[in-house]
Amino acid sequence: MKRLLDEPALRSLARGCAVLGTGGGGDPRIGLLHALQTIEEFGPTELVDLDELPDDALIMPCGMIGAPTVHIEKIENGIEGAVLRDHLEQLTGRKVAALMAAEIGGSNALLPVAWAGRIGLPVVDADGMGRAFPEVPMVTMHLAGISPSPGVMTDERGNVQIFKAISGAWMERMERSAAVEFGGSGAATEYTMTVGQARHATVLGTYSLAISIGDALTAAVGDPIAALTNAVGGFRLLTGKVTDVERRTTKGFVRGSVVIEGLGADSGRLLRIEIQNENLVALEEGTVLASVPDLITLLDSETADAIPTERVRYGQRVTVIAMPCDPVWRTPFGLEMAGPRAFGYDFEYVPVEELADAAVT
Amino acid sequence: MKRLLDEPALRSLARGCAVLGTGGGGDPRIGLLHALQTIEEFGPTELVDLDELPDDALIMPCGMIGAPTVHIEKIENGIEGAVLRDHLEQLTGRKVAALMAAEIGGSNALLPVAWAGRIGLPVVDADGMGRAFPEVPMVTMHLAGISPSPGVMTDERGNVQIFKAISGAWMERMERSAAVEFGGSGAATEYTMTVGQARHATVLGTYSLAISIGDALTAAVGDPIAALTNAVGGFRLLTGKVTDVERRTTKGFVRGSVVIEGLGADSGRLLRIEIQNENLVALEEGTVLASVPDLITLLDSETADAIPTERVRYGQRVTVIAMPCDPVWRTPFGLEMAGPRAFGYDFEYVPVEELADAAVT
Repeated sequence: MKRLLDEPALRSLARGCAVLGTGGGGDPRIGLLHALQTIEEFGPTELVDLDELPDDALIMPCGMIGAPTVHIEKIENGIEGAVLRDHLEQLTGRKVAALMAAEIGGSNALLPVAWAGRIGLPVVDADGMGRAFPEVPMVTMHLAGISPSPGVMTDERGNVQIFKAISGAWMERMERSAAVEFGGSGAATEYTMTVGQARHATVLGTYSLAISIGDALTAAVGDPIAALTNAVGGFRLLTGKVTDVERRTTKGFVRGSVVIEGLGADSGRLLRIEIQNENLVALEEGTVLASVPDLITLLDSETADAIPTERVRYGQRVTVIAMPCDPVWRTPFGLEMAGPRAFGYDFEYVPVEELADAAVT
Repeated sequence: MKRLLDEPALRSLARGCAVLGTGGGGDPRIGLLHALQTIEEFGPTELVDLDELPDDALIMPCGMIGAPTVHIEKIENGIEGAVLRDHLEQLTGRKVAALMAAEIGGSNALLPVAWAGRIGLPVVDADGMGRAFPEVPMVTMHLAGISPSPGVMTDERGNVQIFKAISGAWMERMERSAAVEFGGSGAATEYTMTVGQARHATVLGTYSLAISIGDALTAAVGDPIAALTNAVGGFRLLTGKVTDVERRTTKGFVRGSVVIEGLGADSGRLLRIEIQNENLVALEEGTVLASVPDLITLLDSETADAIPTERVRYGQRVTVIAMPCDPVWRTPFGLEMAGPRAFGYDFEYVPVEELADAAVT
């Protein structure tokens, strides 16, 4: 179904993408401002389903790569999408028909809307994760065997780099080092594919999902957090106060941890969230309450607005929720790419539903 | 004049390039072995003058970028030249007619011979420095206004990166960071130009010069160092023993310094050489005896073989010589790009001939 992303849709999208970003993908406020300025100048961007495009049409997944802490200070110039598109068309000898968010999380879902609007292209209602992940090959296209090459990156100054990598891991290494050299972040595209390939290589309907999450938050009466967990099938892990934030920007990532002390019914409990751009693991006294690839999100306890990792501060009243990931991440290859061990943790993944059941019983 | 680079020519070339490399460009032994293997498999590579090629023919300057300390352990696979050529042809839509050394120093003059031989192309009798320099835009093509873009890099694994930089300085930053990510060095081409442009944008005849230096060393009877300084119009600064070497591989460069204690007639004197891949400055008790862009080379006192910075060791008996650079480096733009201040030194450049005259009187 073709839809126009007008201001109310963009505002809902921003709230929903913050939740799905699990702390990462960049502060959605930056992407929202880009998108709002674009629709003011060029009119609303079109959101299309894959079915509305010809099977052989080319899709350009895109977004920012780097540390979200940098992204809130080092702003895009707006034409990154056009530069990426032009180079990708030169490299493939084919026209790009639509843009797609590499990840539906945070600012990285809104920037493709802004970039597409400026060059008169639609955005497809899908993404490569169904959430946000920190590393380049942590995308469903990688699981489906799509090649990451050619990759293209650009910065706000107009520098361009093109990458042909022997593997997804090398694409990550080369692009990360370019992002660092650009000052900590850069705009990128990888894993270009046709619409036909995208049907089996992306998470479908995630723009619609993000907008519906935002709408649910806006419409919520009384307890917005309950409204949200109902909308996403999520679980409340803890409500409390941020008592410690350890956060460093290093080698193109934000890494660190957040400690949350329980309040009210959760008084006496202590939760630690570990971070690499996104919230990776929620631990309580050494017990895993939720872990990648499932989604872990910190919400403002009052408004239920999701808080990106780079905005977490001492003293904030937060509620931590967890949500099941897209099933593709629970396959052996999915867990190999984005399960706990892919991030250096020495424990087996257990789905958040099972962990929640175990906690209740 | 067309010439075939056979084994005797390559061996002379290697000795001459070591001298012109002023410590940098990579240990010529690595490049020599590549070149010898290539002529064994493919026959001798052709050395051609620019005049033998059509004015609109395309020249590909190339070589390794990174730290010479890495280059002696991380060996090329031999097809780097072919990969760079293929991508440059795709990018420009034109055929490459000949390869050129970006710098005539060290291994970086011999690798283009090996790469060209494998793909049946000649090497032109010219280079972009008349010596070796550590940074990408320190080439005569930059002084002549040739664009550094597109740059192409590849590693021995087969990864490829293409660069379009907004300036020479950004080409240096992006390529250096790629070299670091590749493990400390990578093969590169930048500043592609036509033969017509090359006539006014390169240092001509530097392969012939390097071979004649090597021949002079081989033919020398008695004092090979005197034979060498006569051949290059150079000056002996000091003969002594290496008493201290401080050398670190950092951010894609080798940096450090070497202290040489005078022996014999130079007894009681102490010379310090400061290094960034190449020998930058020769200092004696705070007095500059020679500096970039002039050439400073450490020779084995017995054989007059030049010693690359990564091979300098405590106890070596060495003679330090200095030679005038190509006049283009003594222009205001030349000094801006590669004079003492370009390397962070706070003193004015004085030509080595004047410094040598002053030292004698």
